Order: sequence, then C-alpha cells, then structure tokens
Amino acid sequence: MIGKCVVLVSLIFASQAAAQSWQAPADSQRCPSKWGAADQRGAGNHMKPETVLRATRLIRAGEVFELGRPLKSDMPFSVGRRFEMETKRTNMNAGSNRRGSNEEIVFTELGQVGTQFDGFTHQTIGDSLYNCVKVADVATRNGFTKLGVEHVGTLMTRGVLIDVAALKGVPMLGDTYPITVADLQQALQRQKLTLQPGDAVIINTGWGRLWDSDGARYLKTNPGLTTAAAEWLAKQDPMLIGTDNGPVGVTPDPDPNLSNPVHQIALVVNGIHLLENMKLDELAGKQIYEFALIVQPLKIQGGTGSTVAPVAVR
Amino acid sequence: MIGKCVVLVSLIFASQAAAQSWQAPADSQRCPSKWGAADQRGAGNHMKPETVLRATRLIRAGEVFELGRPLKSDMPFSVGRRFEMETKRTNMNAGSNRRGSNEEIVFTELGQVGTQFDGFTHQTIGDSLYNCVKVADVATRNGFTKLGVEHVGTLMTRGVLIDVAALKGVPMLGDTYPITVADLQQALQRQKLTLQPGDAVIINTGWGRLWDSDGARYLKTNPGLTTAAAEWLAKQDPMLIGTDNGPVGVTPDPDPNLSNPVHQIALVVNGIHLLENMKLDELAGKQIYEFALIVQPLKIQGGTGSTVAPVAVR
Amino acid sequence: MIGKCVVLVSLIFASQAAAQSWQAPADSQRCPSKWGAADQRGAGNHMKPETVLRATRLIRAGEVFELGRPLKSDMPFSVGRRFEMETKRTNMNAGSNRRGSNEEIVFTELGQVGTQFDGFTHQTIGDSLYNCVKVADVATRNGFTKLGVEHVGTLMTRGVLIDVAALKGVPMLGDTYPITVADLQQALQRQKLTLQPGDAVIINTGWGRLWDSDGARYLKTNPGLTTAAAEWLAKQDPMLIGTDNGPVGVTPDPDPNLSNPVHQIALVVNGIHLLENMKLDELAGKQIYEFALIVQPLKIQGGTGSTVAPVAVR
Amino acid sequence: MIGKCVVLVSLIFASQAAAQSWQAPADSQRCPSKWGAADQRGAGNHMKPETVLRATRLIRAGEVFELGRPLKSDMPFSVGRRFEMETKRTNMNAGSNRRGSNEEIVFTELGQVGTQFDGFTHQTIGDSLYNCVKVADVATRNGFTKLGVEHVGTLMTRGVLIDVAALKGVPMLGDTYPITVADLQQALQRQKLTLQPGDAVIINTGWGRLWDSDGARYLKTNPGLTTAAAEWLAKQDPMLIGTDNGPVGVTPDPDPNLSNPVHQIALVVNGIHLLENMKLDELAGKQIYEFALIVQPLKIQGGTGSTVAPVAVR
Repeated sequence: MIGKCVVLVSLIFASQAAAQSWQAPADSQRCPSKWGAADQRGAGNHMKPETVLRATRLIRAGEVFELGRPLKSDMPFSVGRRFEMETKRTNMNAGSNRRGSNEEIVFTELGQVGTQFDGFTHQTIGDSLYNCVKVADVATRNGFTKLGVEHVGTLMTRGVLIDVAALKGVPMLGDTYPITVADLQQALQRQKLTLQPGDAVIINTGWGRLWDSDGARYLKTNPGLTTAAAEWLAKQDPMLIGTDNGPVGVTPDPDPNLSNPVHQIALVVNGIHLLENMKLDELAGKQIYEFALIVQPLKIQGGTGSTVAPVAVR
Repeated sequence: MIGKCVVLVSLIFASQAAAQSWQAPADSQRCPSKWGAADQRGAGNHMKPETVLRATRLIRAGEVFELGRPLKSDMPFSVGRRFEMETKRTNMNAGSNRRGSNEEIVFTELGQVGTQFDGFTHQTIGDSLYNCVKVADVATRNGFTKLGVEHVGTLMTRGVLIDVAALKGVPMLGDTYPITVADLQQALQRQKLTLQPGDAVIINTGWGRLWDSDGARYLKTNPGLTTAAAEWLAKQDPMLIGTDNGPVGVTPDPDPNLSNPVHQIALVVNGIHLLENMKLDELAGKQIYEFALIVQPLKIQGGTGSTVAPVAVR
Repeated sequence: MIGKCVVLVSLIFASQAAAQSWQAPADSQRCPSKWGAADQRGAGNHMKPETVLRATRLIRAGEVFELGRPLKSDMPFSVGRRFEMETKRTNMNAGSNRRGSNEEIVFTELGQVGTQFDGFTHQTIGDSLYNCVKVADVATRNGFTKLGVEHVGTLMTRGVLIDVAALKGVPMLGDTYPITVADLQQALQRQKLTLQPGDAVIINTGWGRLWDSDGARYLKTNPGLTTAAAEWLAKQDPMLIGTDNGPVGVTPDPDPNLSNPVHQIALVVNGIHLLENMKLDELAGKQIYEFALIVQPLKIQGGTGSTVAPVAVR
Repeated sequence: MIGKCVVLVSLIFASQAAAQSWQAPADSQRCPSKWGAADQRGAGNHMKPETVLRATRLIRAGEVFELGRPLKSDMPFSVGRRFEMETKRTNMNAGSNRRGSNEEIVFTELGQVGTQFDGFTHQTIGDSLYNCVKVADVATRNGFTKLGVEHVGTLMTRGVLIDVAALKGVPMLGDTYPITVADLQQALQRQKLTLQPGDAVIINTGWGRLWDSDGARYLKTNPGLTTAAAEWLAKQDPMLIGTDNGPVGVTPDPDPNLSNPVHQIALVVNGIHLLENMKLDELAGKQIYEFALIVQPLKIQGGTGSTVAPVAVR
C-alpha cells in the first residue's frame, strides 16, 4: 500500500504546485484591455476630478510625509543600473555681479533607479506590452513611440497603506515571505479600511529598513506579493501598487520557473502602475493608513518609468 | 546751447542707468539670512501645514494642469547641457512567463534641463552661496554637502499666475521686454489678486510658445524680470518664482555688465527657489490665476536643482 | 508571341538583378571560417613576426603620417551616436606643492565614433556573427563574451593606399560612385603595386574632404566598394580594409534591398577588420602608396570596435 | 648664546627639510620651457624621423608585447573615475541581407582610466600648466584650447625598461618603496644600458601584479619615484616615463605635505609625458629591456590624456 500512498501524495503536491503557479495569459485573453483597444493610460484613467477631490478631502492636517529616497551612487541598484553624478562649475565670476554657477552631469537608468515609478513600456510578455502593443512596433533607439511615461502626469489619489509587517507583528517580513490574499484582507480588516477603485495601494513589508543598512540583502531576495495576491489586488482596480522593495512580488517566486510574474500581472496584464523602493517607515511607525498620495513622474519621452519623490499628505 | 543740452541729457541717462542697475550685496549685507544663520531651506521654510491647507482649499474642481515639458534630446538647452537617452532591452523571454524588460540609460545635466527647479547650490556671488555658505567648503566631485536639492521635498502651496502678457494685450512679450514692478502690480490688480507670503508666484510672459517652434530664439534672449521687479517680488516673501522661460530675469539684462542678476537675487540673496521653462499656455488661456501648485523635485543628493513635472490643481 | 517575349525579358532582368546583387551566405556556406572553427581573430591572425618585419622594412625615412581625426562633439556621427565631453577640475591647490588636476568625463559610443576600427561583434547576418558565433550566446548587458575588440591588439602591417579618386582624375568620387573590381585593379596597376596577404588595404575616395566642411553630405551617401569589389578584396586576404568614409561600401548600395552588405562581407563572412573615417588627404596628396600601417585599438572588453588614431610610417 | 643656538638649530632643520622635500618652482624659474615660449609639445618634440628610425632599428624579431590592460568596469580606478559600458543592438535584420549591428555606449573619464597616457593639461602648479599656460585662459566646459592631447599623435621611440624590482631581487617592491637615483643608475648598470634623449623610460616596480588580484591595495599606496629620482630622470631628457602603477611617484610621498609632486615634475615643470598602469610582467619576465615603444593616444580634442593600448616591439 505504500506505493499507492506515495503516488497519491505526489499527485496532491503536483496539483498544489500547479494551483500555486501562474501562466502568462495569451494576448487574446488580455486584449483589448478593459480601458479600450487604443488605450495607453491603463489605471491612469482613474485620474479624474472626483479622484483628485477624494484625495483632497483626506488632507486635513496639512502634514506631508516624504516617501522617496535620496538619489546617490551608493544606494542599492538592480544589476546593471547605476546613478553616477559629477558636479560641474560652469561660471565663476561672470559679470560685475560675480555670478557663479554650478550644475551636475548624471549618467543613470533614469526610469528605473531609486524610489521609482513604472510605466507600461517597462515589462512585456514575450514581445507584447500592455494592451498588446508590440515592442517591435514602438521601440526606437531613444524611447518608445507609444505608452511612454511622459503620458502619465501627476497622480493624486487616495493612498492606503496596508501594513502586512504590522499584521504579522514583526518589524520586517522574512526574506522570502509570500504575502497572500488573506494577509492583505486581514491587514485591511485590522486597519478598518476597504479599498476603492483608483486607490494607490501601498504595502509595507518592512524590507525598506535594509535600504541603507544592508543593500546586498535588500537586493538578494525580498518578501512580496504572490501571484494570487497580485491578481486579487488587480481586481480591486487600483491606480497603482507601491511597496518598500524593488520587485513588489516575492523574490524569488515560489515557482522557480517564473521570473517576477507580479510585474507582468500589474503592468502588462492589468495596466496598473508600480511604485517601488518607497520609504514607508514613517507612515508605518505613525500608523498613518489613509492619505492623499501624490507622485509626479518625470515626462521622459518614450521612457519606461521615472525615478520619483512621492509624498503622502494628510 | 546744443552742447549743454547734450551734456544734460547724457547726465540724465547716466543717472537713470545707475538707478536701473544692481550691485551684488556683500556677504555682511545678506547674511545670516532671515531664516537664521544655519538655515539651508530658505523660502522652503514656508512649507508648513497651514501653507499646505491653504493650497488644499483651492482644490475645488479636481482639475489638474500639467506645467512640465516632456524631456527629450531635441528640446532647447542652455549652452553645454543635453538630455541623451538610449533604450535598453534587458530581458527578452525570462522564465516560463516569458518576461521581457526595458529600461533607458540617460546622460544629462539632471538638475538643470527641461522644466526645472533650482536649489541653492546652483548660483553664487563670487564663492558664496545662499546664507554665505562657501562653495569651497561644501563642493565635492559628486555633489554639495550642504544646501543640496534633496533637502527640499515636495512643495505644495498657493500658486498665483501673474499674466504680464495678458496685461499688455499680447500673446508674447517682446524679445528683451523688461518686466517692471508696475507691470507686476498692474497685472495683479487686473486679476484682482494679492500675493501672500509663501506663494508660488508664476509669471506668464508668453515666451513658452517658442519652446517647440523656435528653440534658437527661445534661448537667445527673453522677456523677464528687471532686478527691481525681482527685488520687489522677493519682498513679497514667496516660496518660489516660476516662469515660462529659462533665466527668469530679462536677458540680456539692461545693464550689460550684469550676468543674470535675477538668479542671484532669488537664489543667493533671498533663498527663493526658481521654477523655469514652465508650460503656462493652458493656465493663461483659461485665465486660471489661483490654484494649488505642486512640485516634486527629485532628491538628487547634493544636487543643484532638479528637472520636474509640476502641476496646478484647482 | 508577346506573352512569351515578356516572360523572356522578365527572365533576363531577373537574372541581371541576381547577378548584380548579393545574398548573405548561409551559416553552412561560411563556417567554420578558414582560420578554424574556434577562431576569434579572423584576419588578425596575419599579425605575425614576419608581417611586422615586412612593415618595419618599409620604414626608411622615419616619417609619420597621422590618419586619425580629432574626437569632438561636432564631428559627423552616424545616427544615434555622439561624443559628449565635460572638463572636470578635480584638485586645485593640493599640498604645499599646490597641485591641480584636470580630467574629462565622456559619454560616447566608444567603439563606433570618429576614426574607428571595427571588431567582429559589430555586425551580424541575422543572429550570427563571424565564425557563426550566435549573438544570443555571447551578448551581455556590458559587452560580448567572445570576439570582443580587446583580443585584437596592435596591428602593424604593410599598408597600401589604393587611390581610386586619383585614378579617375578627381579630388573626390561622386556621391554614390560604386568602386568596381576594375577600378581597384587599374589603380593598383597605375601605382605599380600588388597586394599581399595580410596587407592593410586603404582606399582613397576623396570623400574625407567633407568631414570638416559638410558633415551632412558626408553622412547622407558616399562612394564606396560594390559587393563584387569587396569580395575581390577579401580574396586578396588582407588584414583590414580602410577608407575615408564610414560605411566602406557604396551608400546606398545599388540594390535597394541591401543594407550595407560590404560590412557583412568583411566582418561577418571573411573576418576582415574595417578602419573607417580615415584622414587620407596627406598620403594621397604626397602619393605615398606603401608604408607601415600601425593601429592600436583600445582593449574595450567585449567591445564592438574602437575609436583609434592610426598612422602610416615610412 | 641661546639666540645663536636657536638660529643654528633652525638652520639645521631647515636644511634637512630642504634635503628631503621638494618645492614647486615659481613660474619664472621654469618658463619659458626649454622647447620655447610658445611650445605645446614638450618632450613630444623628440618625435622626429631619427627617433623613429632609431626605434625601427630595434625591431629585429617582429615580436609584439601588449602593455595595455583591458578596459572594464571592475578594474582599479582612482577615486571618482569609472568605466561604464552598455551594449546596444541597433539593427536586427536590416535589408534582404538581414544585417544586424551592435555598438556600445560608454561613460568614462576617457583620458584618465586604465592603461593611460598623460597630456599636459592634466596637472598644474596652482593655476599654471606646462610652459606657464594659465588654466583660466584655456579651460572651457568641453576641453582645453591649448595643450590638448589631440596634438600629441603617435609616439614611436626607443623604449628602455628599468627593472628596479629585479635589481632588488623581489617580484614586487614594497608598498611605499621610494625609488632613488641610485636605484635607477644601478638597475641600468645591471642591465648594461644607458639612457638617450627621447627615450621612453619604463620602470618596472612589480606593482602591476596587484591590478587584477588586489585593486584596493594597488590604489592605496605604491612604490615609485622620489622627487630626486624624477628630477634625475627628467635631466636624461626622455620623451615619456612609464610604469606599472598609477601615480609614477612613490605614494604617499615621504614628505606628507606634498601631493604627488612627481606628476608636476614630469608634466608641468619638464613637459615629459607619463604612461601609467602598464602591464609589464611579460617584458620583465623575459628580460626584454630595449625595444621600440609605440603608443597611440586618442585625439581627444582638448583632452587631458588618453586611455591607450601601447606595445613594445622588438
């Protein structure tokens, strides 16, 4: 009878593995997007007067919380990225007014460093971007002719911080902790908040405390969303999903065959922006869970994203 | 008698020229700044809860107006600056989910290109910055150890558009039109607005309509503030002064010996930020003169300024 | 009978077109290269002691002719390339010896600007490089793991200038003049020279006189080798082919369906290096047709080529 | 009597200090240079036909020894320098010939990285360059209008390797070993060679063996020339001085008040080029002490130096 048991157990595990994992939808399953066949804005379409007013009504104290990290050459970088800056003195004593000028020359992956906002040209499934725009049709040597981050503009919407670390009673989730649907739902319940379409959903994992102290560990793995949690979040119809690590999804994904599927679920399948490497300690520490989230991506023409300096205002 | 007349007229002109011109104040005349001897924030100190709430109260319609220009390699640049970008494909079919990634590498004077915000390390009088910080004491190869733009953070304050072009009944002021104190006062009167301490004062010259159509003329000269107008504005105690050209001051200055003195008056003498190359046509066209101005400078550590994408919200 | 005639005429034209044009050989037709299946040096294998000594014997007067152009931001560039440089002052009065230091930061397509040497990762047929190395197998974000220009080293060999412009009695060949096999043979005959395996074959078209005076025309089209002339040259087994324009091949190619096939014939099919944008006026003017050619490509690890400053010595 | 003693003691100390240390000569003591008041070439003036022929006569075996290091992002850099490179694919299947193109974008201190050649704008005494050219008169944002490295051209001269490590019977001199005049003279005697005006004098310290294995130690200190040895070498009238470390001079200098005085002695006072970070293990290992040295600095317009890939040929 042992043989049969083994087979049975194997089958159960295999079926669980299959259930856990995720398959990138075919173009036909995801296009046109719910925002229309020609749409380039995705969840940015939520950015309407009523959304702005809803956020405005949350500003009662006039308090501003900076959620961006300083840009510097020794911050943590995903492989192949950098921020190199040189100071330039361009005038020293011009005119009778002895005017001096300084500026800086910078070499950087401008869309993808530091606290950072993802546009829709950042990720693909195969050769296909959000709304099934083909990379080959829109890529140039100097940016993309569609879906570029210059179309996004300032986003100002209700922000909700979901503090999963606090739910678990830890300052920081474990190195590969997979945030589940239940985690998100229980954290919201604990915080007595519900999500609304168009929200900026910000998830605190506590991982951000490694940013300055242990960049190598910060980059190696990270707690983050499972594909199921990302899909559940996408169904809540947010404008963007933010967090205090880079990948947003748990890294590595529990399915070793998957390469950061949460990026695809958000950006490619659902047209939801991502906001990464946020500084969330102050909000979490003060238990500020609802606020106006304001983020101003640079208008990098044809860009894949933008380094940003978002704020929460309440 | 002709000889005497000529002398007299010459004297009058000479005295007018002397009256018009400007002398950079000595360190002892301007330091410590009114914000205190150790202050690094200047007019950014206006960024307090009441300021934010005052701006918030102006948001009644939820309308957002983008005041930033797209960043691209063929926009107008002051001499020696550029924005060079190359698209990079960093993954093509990673994992069973066939994830592809794109990003961009950028080489640019990041603090001083496009629609752009000036911090206090950008300008000097001789070797001396705002609050008499010495360049030699704070400059490094990779940024400034004091007064860097990373300290500024998001600014959200009441914005007032002063439309001098509309006052003069023209779409665009002349190539070297000097905006006077009277111009500013009359335009405010016409718009039935008064300035308040902490305001973002935005001046429409109409010059911005050259940005896309005639970059060479845009850069060669520009209408802008006289030194007297800049000093009058500084006395109104604004958080920042913005406009739709680069220098803010009239270029060239009427006194040929002066090199952009308005930059010094704002940044060095008074610690007031500048916001340049703004896109103001929509606000001016719709006669939107009062609004919440929100600008989010990047936290470039030790930087002289930041390219930005500000908005007006009402 | 008309129908048959038409068919016949069509066949004749088709066959002529086929005769004129060029087809990229299949991998099986060109690999392994004549230098062996694992070879990465191609015609660089000619760089042997006897080759160096043969070149050395040509140095009788000790005269050196500079064949490189100065590197500067306003030289002609192929689309998407640039050379941006900023001077940096890094020390001003260090030590009691008051030492000051200057350096420069440069942003450039280092392998492919100015007077420039091509390595074998620069060009492909489909996904296949010289010796049928696959791009996908050797490309990284930061260079190629095989065939990089760092393997080349200094080349010192007999140089032969073939002055086709002089053969035709003009200072400069026409804008799209196709240099034929006969042109090369007649020019050599006129110069009383024969080619030897391992030579650096340098072709003067006169096009270089546009470099400083009319960069737009320099880049738009150029006289250069036909595919037949390039294949004939390749059979002479040179170490490299150089010329005073960028593409080496006539541009556009007479067959409008072909995209610079001469680059493929040299680099991909035959493993012969190219040396572009050379300054040849002095050699041509003084009728110096035989010399030691010395070129020192930078050892850019994994690079596709190198900007260089070659010389002729005699 | 105390007064006299004090004076005497002071004199002794002063004379000891003078013996140990070095003072940067005043402009009047060193200008005009021995090459004339308007000279920009310094020891590059040695580059004459007879010099080339003397080098040529040393090429008897046709053997080439590469003395340059590969350029890569993880080689040792002096503070504030880097070599950043990104591969670009610029065509994939152009034309019926399916032509693909690759190139690289590079961000680097091009004149001052890797194996590297120093021109005369690299170093100053105060504000004064070689031949007392003033930095303020020739510096622009994008290079120097005089003394730029583009004027140097290929140098080909007799090279002499002085192996000080071999003289001392060690593979590598100590971390701060000061190479004296006696060391140089004894090493030459041991090698049975005398220096001649116009030589490329190359000094082997063995320090180069740390380049790949211990970059931190390579950069921290290094054995090198004392000021006395540098001045003795300068009197031998060489074209250039090369070595297998970066500073050439011993680092730190025995006089803690001096900041790399050997750089000034060579470049500023005597107009002698420097060649740094050379790969000398092969020459030293094979005891090749006399050869033709060929180095081809890039023609960086207004540049301070050039990364290079020199060779020894014999």
